Amino acid sequence: MARVRLGRVYHFAAAHRLHSPFLSDEENLELYRDCNFAAGHGHNYVLTVVVEGEVAPRTGMIGDLGALDRVVQAQVLDRYDHRFIGQREYAPGVPAFISTGEEIARQIWAWLVGALPPGLSLSRVKLEETPRNHFEYRGEAT
Amino acid sequence: MARVRLGRVYHFAAAHRLHSPFLSDEENLELYRDCNFAAGHGHNYVLTVVVEGEVAPRTGMIGDLGALDRVVQAQVLDRYDHRFIGQREYAPGVPAFISTGEEIARQIWAWLVGALPPGLSLSRVKLEETPRNHFEYRGEAT
Amino acid sequence: MARVRLGRVYHFAAAHRLHSPFLSDEENLELYRDCNFAAGHGHNYVLTVVVEGEVAPRTGMIGDLGALDRVVQAQVLDRYDHRFIGQREYAPGVPAFISTGEEIARQIWAWLVGALPPGLSLSRVKLEETPRNHFEYRGEAT
Amino acid sequence: MARVRLGRVYHFAAAHRLHSPFLSDEENLELYRDCNFAAGHGHNYVLTVVVEGEVAPRTGMIGDLGALDRVVQAQVLDRYDHRFIGQREYAPGVPAFISTGEEIARQIWAWLVGALPPGLSLSRVKLEETPRNHFEYRGEAT
Amino acid sequence: MARVRLGRVYHFAAAHRLHSPFLSDEENLELYRDCNFAAGHGHNYVLTVVVEGEVAPRTGMIGDLGALDRVVQAQVLDRYDHRFIGQREYAPGVPAFISTGEEIARQIWAWLVGALPPGLSLSRVKLEETPRNHFEYRGEAT
Amino acid sequence: MARVRLGRVYHFAAAHRLHSPFLSDEENLELYRDCNFAAGHGHNYVLTVVVEGEVAPRTGMIGDLGALDRVVQAQVLDRYDHRFIGQREYAPGVPAFISTGEEIARQIWAWLVGALPPGLSLSRVKLEETPRNHFEYRGEAT
Repeated sequence: MARVRLGRVYHFAAAHRLHSPFLSDEENLELYRDCNFAAGHGHNYVLTVVVEGEVAPRTGMIGDLGALDRVVQAQVLDRYDHRFIGQREYAPGVPAFISTGEEIARQIWAWLVGALPPGLSLSRVKLEETPRNHFEYRGEAT
Repeated sequence: MARVRLGRVYHFAAAHRLHSPFLSDEENLELYRDCNFAAGHGHNYVLTVVVEGEVAPRTGMIGDLGALDRVVQAQVLDRYDHRFIGQREYAPGVPAFISTGEEIARQIWAWLVGALPPGLSLSRVKLEETPRNHFEYRGEAT
Repeated sequence: MARVRLGRVYHFAAAHRLHSPFLSDEENLELYRDCNFAAGHGHNYVLTVVVEGEVAPRTGMIGDLGALDRVVQAQVLDRYDHRFIGQREYAPGVPAFISTGEEIARQIWAWLVGALPPGLSLSRVKLEETPRNHFEYRGEAT
Repeated sequence: MARVRLGRVYHFAAAHRLHSPFLSDEENLELYRDCNFAAGHGHNYVLTVVVEGEVAPRTGMIGDLGALDRVVQAQVLDRYDHRFIGQREYAPGVPAFISTGEEIARQIWAWLVGALPPGLSLSRVKLEETPRNHFEYRGEAT
Repeated sequence: MARVRLGRVYHFAAAHRLHSPFLSDEENLELYRDCNFAAGHGHNYVLTVVVEGEVAPRTGMIGDLGALDRVVQAQVLDRYDHRFIGQREYAPGVPAFISTGEEIARQIWAWLVGALPPGLSLSRVKLEETPRNHFEYRGEAT
Repeated sequence: MARVRLGRVYHFAAAHRLHSPFLSDEENLELYRDCNFAAGHGHNYVLTVVVEGEVAPRTGMIGDLGALDRVVQAQVLDRYDHRFIGQREYAPGVPAFISTGEEIARQIWAWLVGALPPGLSLSRVKLEETPRNHFEYRGEAT
């Protein structure tokens, strides 16, 4: 039985601002620097969803790519694309959180891990915030 | 006499929202679609500044690259990087305007054209908003 | 009045084979080498459509990007994407021709130049066949 | 003893068509959509071969890169580059198969795993079909 | 507890020449070919440092990115950027060694592994020598 | 008659050092900064040669791509690839010069402009020194 991984790339453009409710304004500015500026800034996020499955001899594929796209659209892109990430009022249905790359990657994992099409398991979520920064989450057990 | 062009690439991350004061809310949403969402979104902008000059035999260069960097930093990056573009209260010293790629490219041209180091003239400003969209401005006369 | 250029990037995956009806089989193989192999091969073509127009003060834009996308979809992508380019039987409505990058770029120009949304003129068509080869056509007069 | 991995990138341009002999024509079209169109289409495939080995103190290298290139040329590129993948008559010596990214990656693994230069073991085969899709195979045991 | 990986990309431009003191001049030329040419050549090296840590609930981050940058600047970039790698007289404080990608990656690992900011562990060092070649080192135990 | 431009991309890895014989050591260091360090450094240069010609109806092409490759190999790559650019003793047959991007681009132009295959004229030479810097030369008359 042959297990193959498929990496599929998605794009979304979003704004965010780094600001922790557990820190003073001075601590926020010192820690997050210009990412803490009041009005926020934004990124062209590049999301790679890596799934794994067994190749079905009848189809030569590990799963239905169109179904995967529909899941990512509903779970991630509809919530994040052209939104202000991390602020409850701006992205309906998304709890407020500190919208670092680490936390966005974990939230995307949580949204996808139970929602994948049959036969596919989630290997990792890779989120590129800029061409120089990316974040990877592989779930708790790994 | 040999004229050479130098293209120098800069990056800035910013938020923006497309909304025209000359249109109704319905017209804004119809024209700009998700770019009109209230909280804004953002991009990793990639700016290529193309300058032209004559190669100086003493140095083999058309101008001082470090001086060019300082001009772009002061004229563009300090105003746009990690800011919310097009909204007066968020980017101090920048007049409010409709922050389309077209208008941002023109504003960058206006800031740079008279401020370049000696010997360099501005050929064009290229602004990539996403990997699929870029805008080019070459000034009024061309 | 400010004229700005917009470059918009489209992708299509297609097969083709280089074979000239004016050459013998031996000449075809010698000229086109492995691009002449009988079953054809293919590419991920990257098409950049560059249009130019005046920025409208009411909208900050030179034209309607959604309308441009619909034109390119109907004129180009519906005919070329996932097709065998240059063979009449495979791409319905497309005349047979030698499907070099030069000819594909010219054909795309011909399909687009009269069909653009109001206010936009076609500046150039750039077609990347591979990361090492691209073709540019700017119309007859330039 | 220091084990280092080397990733080496190769390119090939090929056509393919997705069509399963185990499915009806209707099922094929529904599953593979435009990838099932009769004449086929194509891609600029990007193949990354990742090998692992111990660094030899005499040379500072894990193996002979020129020898690796010759193996990949003979085992993969001579069979796939500028060919129609998955159809027996077009790629001599290659059995017919459903030419999905999953199956191509597995076939490349099978061709390389026993043919590598001395000291190198195969870690993974990564095949990019488009900038948005890639497939990874690491062999049966992993 | 959630462990996330951060990949951070750095650039340095350096010269090098491959030449082993354990081989004759003829053997050096045969093994390293044009990389053995006497005056050396150079590359735009792209270094990805991948670190791992637990996300701190107070900050949403695994560690201080600015502190990581300062470590990589002092440990790697100050020694390699705009230097001739592998030759003692040119890169002060760096022992002479055979400057293959394998050995540079290992040396970077050795410099970074004990110097990272609190909470971060080193997962891997990836060094791209050219767009077609990259080297990965994950330490001895992996 | 249809004129099309072809851009063809070539790669070479080379070392160089910026140092002007017309300046003192102090002036050299102040002007060129780390590019003036004594042992030199290097780059993965990316060269795009843009040629123009009329599409021949018999072939669908503006010229012979294989012939263009042979010209660039002999005129440019054999002189620059894996060499120390700008120093007479290291790149035989190349006069000593200040090896800035401006001067390298002009030298490549001079080598190519009279040597192109029949029917092709040289439009421009674009030289990328790093992902952030590129130089363009279009000859004296433009």
